[in-house]
Amino acid sequence: MELAIVGLGKMGGNMAERLLKGGHAVVGMDHHADARARITRLGGRAAEGFKELLAALAAPRTVWLMIPAGEPVDRAIADLRAAGLAAGDTVIDGGNSNYKDSQRRHAQLATAGIRFLDVGTSGGIWGLAEGYCLMIGGDAAPVERLAPVFQTLAPAKDRGWAHVGPAGAGHFTKMIHNGIEYGMMQAFAEGFAIMHKKGELSLDLAAIAELWRHGSVVRSWLLDLTAQALSKDAALDAIKPFVPDSGEGRWTVAEAIDLDVPAPVITLSLQARFRSRDAESYADRLLAVMRNQFGGHAVATKDPARH
Amino acid sequence: MELAIVGLGKMGGNMAERLLKGGHAVVGMDHHADARARITRLGGRAAEGFKELLAALAAPRTVWLMIPAGEPVDRAIADLRAAGLAAGDTVIDGGNSNYKDSQRRHAQLATAGIRFLDVGTSGGIWGLAEGYCLMIGGDAAPVERLAPVFQTLAPAKDRGWAHVGPAGAGHFTKMIHNGIEYGMMQAFAEGFAIMHKKGELSLDLAAIAELWRHGSVVRSWLLDLTAQALSKDAALDAIKPFVPDSGEGRWTVAEAIDLDVPAPVITLSLQARFRSRDAESYADRLLAVMRNQFGGHAVATKDPARH
Repeated sequence: MELAIVGLGKMGGNMAERLLKGGHAVVGMDHHADARARITRLGGRAAEGFKELLAALAAPRTVWLMIPAGEPVDRAIADLRAAGLAAGDTVIDGGNSNYKDSQRRHAQLATAGIRFLDVGTSGGIWGLAEGYCLMIGGDAAPVERLAPVFQTLAPAKDRGWAHVGPAGAGHFTKMIHNGIEYGMMQAFAEGFAIMHKKGELSLDLAAIAELWRHGSVVRSWLLDLTAQALSKDAALDAIKPFVPDSGEGRWTVAEAIDLDVPAPVITLSLQARFRSRDAESYADRLLAVMRNQFGGHAVATKDPARH
Repeated sequence: MELAIVGLGKMGGNMAERLLKGGHAVVGMDHHADARARITRLGGRAAEGFKELLAALAAPRTVWLMIPAGEPVDRAIADLRAAGLAAGDTVIDGGNSNYKDSQRRHAQLATAGIRFLDVGTSGGIWGLAEGYCLMIGGDAAPVERLAPVFQTLAPAKDRGWAHVGPAGAGHFTKMIHNGIEYGMMQAFAEGFAIMHKKGELSLDLAAIAELWRHGSVVRSWLLDLTAQALSKDAALDAIKPFVPDSGEGRWTVAEAIDLDVPAPVITLSLQARFRSRDAESYADRLLAVMRNQFGGHAVATKDPARH
């Protein structure tokens, strides 16, 4: 099939490559000339603006957005409409958008007869080789029409992609997926941290991660990646203990609250990331001061010369 | 090789079968006649007591215990010694013993020249077909001597088994493995619970679990099992929300405390299991009463006729 991909970064660029190798016609658009050059080198076409992008496609056109969530998606949709996106065309948002934004965009575009699919896309930088897991929300007609595209992006034609529900369901499912991912990662991190601290046993963490990959209950792709990382450097001495988060975790927690569903572990996994970024924890300083107040416990003060 | 297996339950019976199919000579012992009959049917021998068991083996003898952790292991070791276990023989504890018990047993048996290995064994009922992940603690000599046994039990000759450290290291590693497992399970459980509550999207949880198995970041053996369970019954209406725990989780939490290592998610996963078993939560009743005290909020009382 023929489609456009807007945003040729780590995800979009690799997806374009996988589609081109799968025999699809891809028109890529990106601010960076080298990202566009990659697409043309692989046999695709590149556009420098939305008008050129839409002109390169035959109706009904499909534009897959792989850009940061939030305002950039609204802006891209507005720009596409200004450039001539028309009834019958389909916009796919493959980024990590909030599912409520996707529901809103679906409804807005529907008034103009434009299709909108929200496609939660998992797989990271490994997706190029292994395929992407695609969680698709929206109307049935565009999902059926674009099946060949999903079949190429997925790990196999008949698995790793699914129409999971109406508008928003794709990004909702991807949000929950990422929330679960936070919890799994934190569980591994804590377990390895306990083993790391158990100096008397001199455990080889890389060897244990590799061992667990075979036959254990915790075998998983995250463990595969952990084993690979630890095999290169198990001490992690050069790594700063600072963990960003990109939205889906906090949305999962907010959703759990909205629905009155207890989700303590996912919530705490998110908050562990907050803690990782708070080297000057006000709460911990306050705790130290409180202990001093009621028990006269010593308070460690900072070296003022270092501030 | 030749070895005895004491305890032919879900784990021990399947391990005996895997060893027999792998060409080893197994003498099995179990209270249940049908468990013993299974072993003889598969070409092994069965013993009804420790004397008979030891008599069936040529020195140096190997006895693999697959029995409940705690006192039963101490009793079995005492019985084995009374029955003639001697210097040069090896006892393997493949159960979920506390690693400190294993360190003590290793030291005690060493004074009599008897070898002791603690072998954390993961794989559950699937181990028979897929192989077991073996985390081995103890001295190098018996590990080397018994390598052919480990090679047969593991998923493959060269992977899924490893000598991870000195006495206790095998059960320590298995303990941490299970702690991580608790966290992973809880993360999945919470994520699926949020999706289950999101009625407006009518998500097909079995289909989503199956979808995630291919290309997603959360793909894992636990997800494979979850997908399988949900494909048979996604409503879980007949399942009581009651989750036992078998020791390793709480030992992991205690170890984290001993080592001053924060492990919030593993800790909370254990406590979520406690909460699952507390249908008459005193804490929640107290909270309800407190809210009533300060705010006059309504307190739901039980129907006395139902008590």
